[in-house]
Amino acid sequence: MNYPNTLKNLIECFKKFPGIGEKTAERMALSTLEMPDETLELFSTSLKNVKTKIKKCEKCGNLTENDLCQICLDEGRNKTTLCVVEESKNVILFEKIGTYNGVYHVLGGLISPLDGVNPEDINLNSLLERIKKEKIKEVIIAVKPSIEGETTALYIRKMLEGLDVVVSKIAHGIPMGAEMEYIDPLTLELALEDRTTIS
Amino acid sequence: MNYPNTLKNLIECFKKFPGIGEKTAERMALSTLEMPDETLELFSTSLKNVKTKIKKCEKCGNLTENDLCQICLDEGRNKTTLCVVEESKNVILFEKIGTYNGVYHVLGGLISPLDGVNPEDINLNSLLERIKKEKIKEVIIAVKPSIEGETTALYIRKMLEGLDVVVSKIAHGIPMGAEMEYIDPLTLELALEDRTTIS
Repeated sequence: MNYPNTLKNLIECFKKFPGIGEKTAERMALSTLEMPDETLELFSTSLKNVKTKIKKCEKCGNLTENDLCQICLDEGRNKTTLCVVEESKNVILFEKIGTYNGVYHVLGGLISPLDGVNPEDINLNSLLERIKKEKIKEVIIAVKPSIEGETTALYIRKMLEGLDVVVSKIAHGIPMGAEMEYIDPLTLELALEDRTTIS
Repeated sequence: MNYPNTLKNLIECFKKFPGIGEKTAERMALSTLEMPDETLELFSTSLKNVKTKIKKCEKCGNLTENDLCQICLDEGRNKTTLCVVEESKNVILFEKIGTYNGVYHVLGGLISPLDGVNPEDINLNSLLERIKKEKIKEVIIAVKPSIEGETTALYIRKMLEGLDVVVSKIAHGIPMGAEMEYIDPLTLELALEDRTTIS
């Protein structure tokens, strides 16, 4: 005896998600039985559409349902400032702050030779093309502080050498509200390096 | 700027599951983009089917895709021993042990007057009917050790008074592999009460 087929299939599907184990998958599958029909209908349709409707913006690589994403289409954005991020998810993070008014470039990964990810595997060529063609004035590198992130940032800086563009990197340091004693030494080192004068 | 509609809908759907917050829902929705088409197809179809195909067994209340569940249909099971559980999920737990050969009765809840769950709100009437009609010899109460569980067990015992049926309750005690020092006092009390003689 086991769950009926439909439930068994659902459990298998839920298990394919990152961080979802047998027990959680079981609980999630069973809770669909209590959901309103409209929710299940919307869920089912969205899953069917996700691969066909969602595309990458032809310009910046951000997720969109059209050829260009909402940000690239927005006339009010400053098209000469480009924020380079690893994933589309990061675009949403920056948009939530609400103060950045430039556009983005989604790399779709970070250089990581150990994992077989070389510069040509991520959207670096299109970045170079855009910078030349769109008369970008500033490129802000906003990738995570890791070996891969630093390698990618360094690569971009080298790639843009000689071009009339300012290359900057977001500051790494102590996050707001953090207790000093819990900060790891590398973060502390970066925070010290990136110190700013106060007057 | 936010996620494209299809993704936004998916995130909202995932958020409706127990224990899934904004961040996890976002990660799950985004990971659908990397899943093979067949998985999404199966997922989508299963969600659509879950409410129409999955029913409750007419006899025991267990989940099934037919009128009767696999266990009630199984000729090899001992139909005179009845294990009373709270949810269908618990049936699977018992089936995993592999040694229980009786049948089940799923209550679909436990008596909890504070939450407005009275005896008539759970499958107790059908339990009484079954015991009378199906010539049940033993009823094993296997609900969780909680106020609601104890209340329900007590209610069943009273309800079956005078009937020619043995009513038993699964043992509560120290789980296998547990460190004595981490056992709570109530469990220890129950374990002491339910002590068995060894020879």
